[in-house]
Amino acid sequence: MSLITVGTVAFDAIETPFGSSGKVVGGAASYIGLSASQFVEEQHIISVIGDDFPESFVQEMQRRGIRTDGLERRKGEKSFYWAGKYHLDMNSRDTLATELNVLADFQPQVPAAARNADYVMLGNLDPKVQASVLDQMESRPKLIVLDTMNFWMDIALEPLKEVIKRIDVLTINDEEARQLSGEHSLVKAAQKILEMGPTTLVIKKGEHGALLFNDEEVFFAPALPLEEVLDPTGAGDTFAGGFVGYLAHTNDTSFNNMKRGVVLGSALASFTCEKFGTDRLLELTQSELDERIQRFVDLVEFDIILKD
Amino acid sequence: MSLITVGTVAFDAIETPFGSSGKVVGGAASYIGLSASQFVEEQHIISVIGDDFPESFVQEMQRRGIRTDGLERRKGEKSFYWAGKYHLDMNSRDTLATELNVLADFQPQVPAAARNADYVMLGNLDPKVQASVLDQMESRPKLIVLDTMNFWMDIALEPLKEVIKRIDVLTINDEEARQLSGEHSLVKAAQKILEMGPTTLVIKKGEHGALLFNDEEVFFAPALPLEEVLDPTGAGDTFAGGFVGYLAHTNDTSFNNMKRGVVLGSALASFTCEKFGTDRLLELTQSELDERIQRFVDLVEFDIILKD
Repeated sequence: MSLITVGTVAFDAIETPFGSSGKVVGGAASYIGLSASQFVEEQHIISVIGDDFPESFVQEMQRRGIRTDGLERRKGEKSFYWAGKYHLDMNSRDTLATELNVLADFQPQVPAAARNADYVMLGNLDPKVQASVLDQMESRPKLIVLDTMNFWMDIALEPLKEVIKRIDVLTINDEEARQLSGEHSLVKAAQKILEMGPTTLVIKKGEHGALLFNDEEVFFAPALPLEEVLDPTGAGDTFAGGFVGYLAHTNDTSFNNMKRGVVLGSALASFTCEKFGTDRLLELTQSELDERIQRFVDLVEFDIILKD
Repeated sequence: MSLITVGTVAFDAIETPFGSSGKVVGGAASYIGLSASQFVEEQHIISVIGDDFPESFVQEMQRRGIRTDGLERRKGEKSFYWAGKYHLDMNSRDTLATELNVLADFQPQVPAAARNADYVMLGNLDPKVQASVLDQMESRPKLIVLDTMNFWMDIALEPLKEVIKRIDVLTINDEEARQLSGEHSLVKAAQKILEMGPTTLVIKKGEHGALLFNDEEVFFAPALPLEEVLDPTGAGDTFAGGFVGYLAHTNDTSFNNMKRGVVLGSALASFTCEKFGTDRLLELTQSELDERIQRFVDLVEFDIILKD
């Protein structure tokens, strides 16, 4: 089924205890689009870039079925740029620079061909920008997934709550779930957040896996234990792309299918951590993905025999 | 099969952001013994108490098939006492008081009837005391499980490494695995630790679950998402008791059976977190345990359909 994604297509510069990326292509919609393209034949991304952005990357996305009619290119302006530095634990990071550039006054335009999309992925952005994409849809999509972060909870909580009312699935990390709900227990946090509008909540816990909640069920997928985590930037977006891409491909939004989406999203995210930027996603083969999914199955598989 | 456990039988006083326990029965061997008694009909515990320790708790253990021939009672002396305070995240804590009392010169005596035990659980104690239990065994046990903590890595690393050479399964938490191996990646940490002697390693990650490694395989069991964690003290010991108790009961030390042991240990540990001290373990029913194991199965169960 048809999928549209709104989010940044941008530059990142990452420092970790193990190395520096230099200026590389990043951005939520880049990761989401590439990850979803593992499953969907055609999708739209809606974003904005400056004339400093490499046309080769745009063409690479197009080759993977990512339509770029909604990708605005501004002459004489620069793309969004973010620089950050990870701490030794690779779970926390400091922002070193944020240059909004073209993003400062981004007004997403949903192409006519995408206004009846069944699946909508609202990548991390100003909640008002996320809402404006929903405003442009001609029919209520079958599934709306929204990713956000603590930054918007700090400075735009009310607009965020407004857009959260209109979505089906919210993806945030554990600290953000605690912040949004005011509850320390993730079980209680999930209950409160599900009362805010979404029917389903994904809590991303980084190296500790991901939890999927609806009002009756809960599912947990671990992160694959990796020998090396070179750079986790984009892992959450890769996860979201795999999740929504798989749901769109199968056109099945049942909880059981969302479980599969979480496993596939987690498997894809594990690749993103292995190299800087989108490099690992770009070189990923189907057999590598299949092998990693099998590792997931093996990692959690057990048969239990209760006490005699 | 026969099981012996060495560890503390003691008093704890716990403060958490949600309440205080007062002085309650605790100690590694108390939790291990009660947890293992879910599976094994008869076991020995080897420990030492003062005459301040409640005889009613000793009788309660005996009613659950825990033989106390190896439980030394010292007249005119006090039992080991530990007081601690948990931080708001319930994952980290400060020690407020440690009174060794009878533990200061504890020399464990393995009763004759226990010297051919097939399963040995060395609870967290001075590594030299753990080693002295192994010295007293008349035949090499089928499985030796050892639990320890960062305290012994700080002050008794060489004796700890010596006893680790003689065991089959080591259980430690993630930070301890990093400390013992000098590796940040848990995958690399596991590889290094498995070269130190044990064939199997359990890395306990508290609310983030547990990893089971041998040199070829890895298994992950999540912790059950709980609405409330009142007091995690003893959860690791409860885990170890359920793990080794199940292996002894089934007399099967295969990796597949250890997976079941990890799941059962995790399920039992989740109960310990719900009340102060051993109260929740003491009132636990088989149907409650079965229900929780089913929650585990439901939590991680998925069927994956690969891309067409």
